[in-house]
Amino acid sequence: MDEKILKELRLILGNEGVSTGQSVRELHSHDESFHTPVLPDVVVFPKNTDDVSRVVRLAYDNDIPITPWGVGTSLEGNPIPVQKGICMDFQGMDKVLAIRKEDFQVDVQVGVVYKELNKMLSRYGLFFPPDPGAAATIGGMIGNNASGIRTVRYGATKDCVMKIKVVLYNGDIIEVGSRARKSSSGYNLCALFIGSEGTLGIVTEATLKLTGLPIGFMALRAVFTEVIDATDTVFQVMSSGLTPAAMEFLDGDVMAVLNKDRGLSLHEKPTLLMEFHGYSDEGLKPELSFVEDICRENRCIFLDKGIGAAERTRLWEMRHLTLESIKRSHPGLMPLIMDVAVPLSRYSDMVGYIKNAVKGLTAYVFGHAGDGNIHVIVMDDPKDRARWSLVEKANEDIVLKALELEGTCTGEHGVGIGKRHFLRIEHGEGLDMMKKIKDLFDPKGLLNPGKFFL
Amino acid sequence: MDEKILKELRLILGNEGVSTGQSVRELHSHDESFHTPVLPDVVVFPKNTDDVSRVVRLAYDNDIPITPWGVGTSLEGNPIPVQKGICMDFQGMDKVLAIRKEDFQVDVQVGVVYKELNKMLSRYGLFFPPDPGAAATIGGMIGNNASGIRTVRYGATKDCVMKIKVVLYNGDIIEVGSRARKSSSGYNLCALFIGSEGTLGIVTEATLKLTGLPIGFMALRAVFTEVIDATDTVFQVMSSGLTPAAMEFLDGDVMAVLNKDRGLSLHEKPTLLMEFHGYSDEGLKPELSFVEDICRENRCIFLDKGIGAAERTRLWEMRHLTLESIKRSHPGLMPLIMDVAVPLSRYSDMVGYIKNAVKGLTAYVFGHAGDGNIHVIVMDDPKDRARWSLVEKANEDIVLKALELEGTCTGEHGVGIGKRHFLRIEHGEGLDMMKKIKDLFDPKGLLNPGKFFL
Repeated sequence: MDEKILKELRLILGNEGVSTGQSVRELHSHDESFHTPVLPDVVVFPKNTDDVSRVVRLAYDNDIPITPWGVGTSLEGNPIPVQKGICMDFQGMDKVLAIRKEDFQVDVQVGVVYKELNKMLSRYGLFFPPDPGAAATIGGMIGNNASGIRTVRYGATKDCVMKIKVVLYNGDIIEVGSRARKSSSGYNLCALFIGSEGTLGIVTEATLKLTGLPIGFMALRAVFTEVIDATDTVFQVMSSGLTPAAMEFLDGDVMAVLNKDRGLSLHEKPTLLMEFHGYSDEGLKPELSFVEDICRENRCIFLDKGIGAAERTRLWEMRHLTLESIKRSHPGLMPLIMDVAVPLSRYSDMVGYIKNAVKGLTAYVFGHAGDGNIHVIVMDDPKDRARWSLVEKANEDIVLKALELEGTCTGEHGVGIGKRHFLRIEHGEGLDMMKKIKDLFDPKGLLNPGKFFL
Repeated sequence: MDEKILKELRLILGNEGVSTGQSVRELHSHDESFHTPVLPDVVVFPKNTDDVSRVVRLAYDNDIPITPWGVGTSLEGNPIPVQKGICMDFQGMDKVLAIRKEDFQVDVQVGVVYKELNKMLSRYGLFFPPDPGAAATIGGMIGNNASGIRTVRYGATKDCVMKIKVVLYNGDIIEVGSRARKSSSGYNLCALFIGSEGTLGIVTEATLKLTGLPIGFMALRAVFTEVIDATDTVFQVMSSGLTPAAMEFLDGDVMAVLNKDRGLSLHEKPTLLMEFHGYSDEGLKPELSFVEDICRENRCIFLDKGIGAAERTRLWEMRHLTLESIKRSHPGLMPLIMDVAVPLSRYSDMVGYIKNAVKGLTAYVFGHAGDGNIHVIVMDDPKDRARWSLVEKANEDIVLKALELEGTCTGEHGVGIGKRHFLRIEHGEGLDMMKKIKDLFDPKGLLNPGKFFL
């Protein structure tokens, strides 16, 4: 990178805000996926929106690509700086700006890590519901429209962000959205930026919509002999009008890995984990008995259940360990993590198709079943081209099947590099309008280039 | 209008699909607001998306403005064809295309009236939650991002639309959104079109997200001596983590009109109406007792309450009659209906400000308090310029106050004609990006012209 540019970056951010060190650049060359790492020319660490604005303007004036960076927990290559240039790391923008307890809102800089935010908010009896599992930043979650286990009840990131501050391609700063709980004023630009992975502008601050921590808890672990009985149960629970706060499916292989890695002794069979929240433990009892009925009607062979927060924790602990346990059980191999979602009525079909498609691969099937979202982790060696092409073929087949079933190519991991070639099939001519919007918001194509569009 | 164009329209839609009759044009010249009527040159009645596409392309080729029309229940002049041209009435596109009970989804043409849709869906135990009150069409609701009494729990229209079919400025047809409950695939164009009032494209079909009809009901009517006690109660109920399915405020004057017009004998004091939904009547009892406590702590002087659907109906009937009763009590006068929303912590301030701002006017204050949304109906004579300018001044003052309190100029009625001059104050430079999007999606400025932008 031109020494003149580095000098200007240092003028804006100070020496400590600009790094060209090899190890720092390497750290910012990859996410948690198998996608090929690319080293940025320089990594910068802004402290506030004004810093971001000045860096973006400099990049714009000098035609330098700029890729925003949270903590690199993405799974589709979303933050890899494929055209090099500037990587903008938000770790220095980790301030909680205001807690508006009375409005169930919090204002944050986007470098805040959501797990730490929720730990802090718990003191106020509040939480930010989307929970991608990984230790993501709020900025990364907004970029990706992240979601997770509790989305089935509380929504994805797009449902929980009220207002954002955005730096546009030329360094201009705009605020979009409203602190009011509802508004019909103007175009919904806030929704347009959420999930755009930094390709339309760089989000620097956000007002998040919070939820009160639930008081009543009820949880179940239901075990089935056949996958289809488990997935049919998902469908029946969801379509009965119940509103679970979590509804997770884990295949028998996943349970086996958990047992081995964690020294547990759970049934190594298709399993559902469910959680319900309410205003009191007592008030949840009618739901519990109704869910039990549905499970039994679907030939559930084992049912562990409990009322109250402690029972919830007991039943759920192992779910949070899944990805880690799978990875640790296959040292030396890389995961390809698939991520499709389909309408609930198609969930059994989708899971059935997947079980066939991954035969012969080291594959673990699980997912946020209540949202029709399913993940497959396939562990293999990307350097073994023949093997890896089988893995990629399975991914492609599974995505195409999901689209055939009126689903989506990505439920929550975003487009990044890995899903670009499916957008035309999913969106048809809508993709042309997306490209026009991209060109409008990023006329020089410098904002997280190489993502979304082929 | 050019006879050649009329002939082409008749070729597309048949003779019965094209009207230049005076009475039909007059019917399509106004909405329910005081805004000056403008007669369109012609009213057309498409039957399907292909009809819409062909008409839009004809209009585009011949530079003819085109304004979509539901049933004219808007309140900000949103569907008035201010530049004449073609008014496109969707009453012929009122088909329910598919009920996907198992996915809690319904596919409709946008001319379907939501009240009729909900009557039909109730046979399946389902409903489409946004409820603007008026007999609006789904298309009008999407155009306006309409909401209403139950939005506090179930969201606005934007939260309940999964997928839409849109005819673009040149007649091209795209589909945006997904049937999957979640997706991180591509830009959220669906959210961009919802609330854009037909200024970016014409929505012709929609997949709506439905909710199961609740089984448990609990309702309360709480009466207070002072407005501030009522609004403080709203704030405390909402910030306690309870999730009311409705939380309405009605000022004493509104109750007086209801008594007089309907022969009721309710307290003519600040009143809250609340409703809670649950999985069983029984399960709602802890919430009821908690809400009662909050009301009493705020000096509630009368509390009528009930568990179960019949009680809910008894307590709520009069709320649905409000607008009608107010209008009927002032024959010969027109309403100006104000519509602002503020963060909940500012609701008491906002209502207090309003009570002062409308002194000397015939004003009724009520609103969807749980969402921080407040309406003021002022009845007066638009032809009496001196009086009406006082009404408009009050509206302006109230909007500016709402914006000062970090609220929005329109909670649910949209921008239309009436709120255009507040968008710059609310959105700052964000409005410039909105205008660029408008120019991108409507390069000739023919789609519902004269709305949104000054």
